[in-house]
Amino acid sequence: MSEVTGEACEHHTHGYIEHKDELLKRLRRAEGQVRGVQRMVENDDYCIDILTQLSAVTKALERVALALLDDHLRHCVASAASDGGDVAAEKLSEASAAIARLVR
Amino acid sequence: MSEVTGEACEHHTHGYIEHKDELLKRLRRAEGQVRGVQRMVENDDYCIDILTQLSAVTKALERVALALLDDHLRHCVASAASDGGDVAAEKLSEASAAIARLVR
Amino acid sequence: MSEVTGEACEHHTHGYIEHKDELLKRLRRAEGQVRGVQRMVENDDYCIDILTQLSAVTKALERVALALLDDHLRHCVASAASDGGDVAAEKLSEASAAIARLVR
Amino acid sequence: MSEVTGEACEHHTHGYIEHKDELLKRLRRAEGQVRGVQRMVENDDYCIDILTQLSAVTKALERVALALLDDHLRHCVASAASDGGDVAAEKLSEASAAIARLVR
Repeated sequence: MSEVTGEACEHHTHGYIEHKDELLKRLRRAEGQVRGVQRMVENDDYCIDILTQLSAVTKALERVALALLDDHLRHCVASAASDGGDVAAEKLSEASAAIARLVR
Repeated sequence: MSEVTGEACEHHTHGYIEHKDELLKRLRRAEGQVRGVQRMVENDDYCIDILTQLSAVTKALERVALALLDDHLRHCVASAASDGGDVAAEKLSEASAAIARLVR
Repeated sequence: MSEVTGEACEHHTHGYIEHKDELLKRLRRAEGQVRGVQRMVENDDYCIDILTQLSAVTKALERVALALLDDHLRHCVASAASDGGDVAAEKLSEASAAIARLVR
Repeated sequence: MSEVTGEACEHHTHGYIEHKDELLKRLRRAEGQVRGVQRMVENDDYCIDILTQLSAVTKALERVALALLDDHLRHCVASAASDGGDVAAEKLSEASAAIARLVR
């Protein structure tokens, strides 16, 4: 993951911008996996095999989310924390809420 | 969910067959959601908004998996359990392993 | 895990009875881990170290739940499935609901 | 949750210190719940009832972890981010790794 940067987290400097291509590649793979699960259902494949694929694509999406969250902490949250005050408190609340959604 | 049926769990009688259209509809929606996340990344949307969508599609896929598992228990596992013996033990081991993959 | 047994799932033949000592040992260990986390908080230990312990005890409890569920499927659910009818449908609904609680 | 503070994250100023009593209360309750599950196993209670309690205590511990993580972000990580440099990068890597352990 990239170093902590200080510049403000405006539109053009989201943390994930540096890893955009990698994120899109993983998201397209996940999209393909979901289509693959559809084909398994259409072909009346065995339930357990379909469940195995569903677990795989769910885990893949979780890993994308964790990578995005890491970038967000390193850039948007870190730069807001440097500024301190309400903006930082809001960014940290947002991050905690996003983490809670991921955990539950 | 449907009643427990006794017939053997051969290729044509997987539990989910009765809910195939509903499963395919939900999987196509999930596929669309993953494409939606791609567009958000392409448009440099805000990290937290992307994370919110990723959590939503992960949860949607989990619900599909739980529905599939329920059907599998009611049909394939239940009918194997009626037969007893090695086939039942194998089906139950498979089901437990699939549940563990979903939980972790 | 034990073989699938056919006898009815009355009070004395819950699946986990065969593994009761092992379950109690693992639950006592988890209890000790929770007390350990309390000591870390009392001693003002570093947050990340406490979080590491919390993840460990949460995972330990999940493994206990998965072992219990496996026993339940092999005994209570399997024997009910052999009987078929409403009892089986109810046991399967209960099992699916328990699995959903574990997954979410 | 408390406001973002700038002071360095040394031993005495961990984020959770302000909520120590609340954390200890919740951890003691979780300890009691684990002991309660032990009693259920000792009393040969019904598997599903035990699983329901196990899910409850697992979720309770997850909520404690999320509260601790929120405090950690607001204090240790935020103050390190203000300082920037290697310390910040390390704190952020630690936080991301802790989040990943919680999610998986």
